[in-house]
Amino acid sequence: MITVEQAIAAILEQIRPLGTERVHILAACGRVLAEDIISGLNVPPHDNSGMDGYAVRYADIEDARPDHPAWLSVAGDLAAGSVAAAALQPGQALRIMTGAPIPSGADTVVKKEDTILEGDIVGILSAGRRGLNVRCAGEDINTGAQVFTRGALLRPAHLGVLASIKRAVVSVYQRPQVAILSTGEELVDIDGDLAPGKIVTSNSYALAGLVADAGAE
Amino acid sequence: MITVEQAIAAILEQIRPLGTERVHILAACGRVLAEDIISGLNVPPHDNSGMDGYAVRYADIEDARPDHPAWLSVAGDLAAGSVAAAALQPGQALRIMTGAPIPSGADTVVKKEDTILEGDIVGILSAGRRGLNVRCAGEDINTGAQVFTRGALLRPAHLGVLASIKRAVVSVYQRPQVAILSTGEELVDIDGDLAPGKIVTSNSYALAGLVADAGAE
Repeated sequence: MITVEQAIAAILEQIRPLGTERVHILAACGRVLAEDIISGLNVPPHDNSGMDGYAVRYADIEDARPDHPAWLSVAGDLAAGSVAAAALQPGQALRIMTGAPIPSGADTVVKKEDTILEGDIVGILSAGRRGLNVRCAGEDINTGAQVFTRGALLRPAHLGVLASIKRAVVSVYQRPQVAILSTGEELVDIDGDLAPGKIVTSNSYALAGLVADAGAE
Repeated sequence: MITVEQAIAAILEQIRPLGTERVHILAACGRVLAEDIISGLNVPPHDNSGMDGYAVRYADIEDARPDHPAWLSVAGDLAAGSVAAAALQPGQALRIMTGAPIPSGADTVVKKEDTILEGDIVGILSAGRRGLNVRCAGEDINTGAQVFTRGALLRPAHLGVLASIKRAVVSVYQRPQVAILSTGEELVDIDGDLAPGKIVTSNSYALAGLVADAGAE
């Protein structure tokens, strides 16, 4: 007799990793990564706003308080995906949406709740600190950073990260092909004759489900 | 503004269950059952032995003790899947394997560890009780019992149970087909140009993985 641990060790000793194949990430969920993933770019790719509010020069607002707003002229709107036409000048603010790139000249975003708008003039009610509400390029992932390691089981969240670094295709291990042989004189298949002493080979079906669940064929 | 709960309720109010389709249980893992499953047979189908040992008549062994064995003649072997050729006679024992059907005439199984074999005579060292180590027909599932309920998410263990009651094909709900539309001026696809202000529509890919994980297409 050998122990369960010895039996498992004896089996695992015979296991060799399968070959690899390249798959699109939409087909990669549940697969096992066969390469280290290094990011070729920053995520986010550019400095951008973490709030809906106003992009400003911190020097213009550092004395702002609720009872002593800093007044700036609103030079325009900046939606996510668009880019400021010109650099922000002293005394100016740009209305900015979450995710929009920080315009040249600006270094801070004041969230909308900390402002009052009067016509095309905005009053900044709170200075916060320089750089507040600015999400920096590479804040999530830096260019050159190792994102995932060979052997990782790819789940939906991995697909999102791979997409964010523009990795549409990844190398994964081939799926094992598993045959199930249930033995025993008492076993009949699901459509077999349940003569006295016979039972359906039901474990075969549960095992087939578990094998598929584990990512094998 | 409506609350998250209101939004979810408004969406769910529009949801109607999809149609059903019939699938083989090997293709049913992860599907949602669209019928109640009633067993048409007993599981196990026949009384059988829960131990390797000897099938006996309890009346022959009720006085057995380690220092006063009950001696029986071994009338033969009974493996799982085979059936005794004749009923057990008084004074006889049949060597029986786990899972083998209880022979006619026997009512109790004495496990091998509680016996001593001398030639073709076996000494029973412990009486136990009548019916010990006998697994009764229907002990797991009775004919007519409801096994699973409509709406159950089928997992590997369900497949084993369905096979055991000879249900090769079941009715399941059709898989939802889900389209993912990510909107935003800032979004480009994975092979798009990450111009300033643009980011990859990475959530689309994570959502696609989650949708597939949830059993939709």
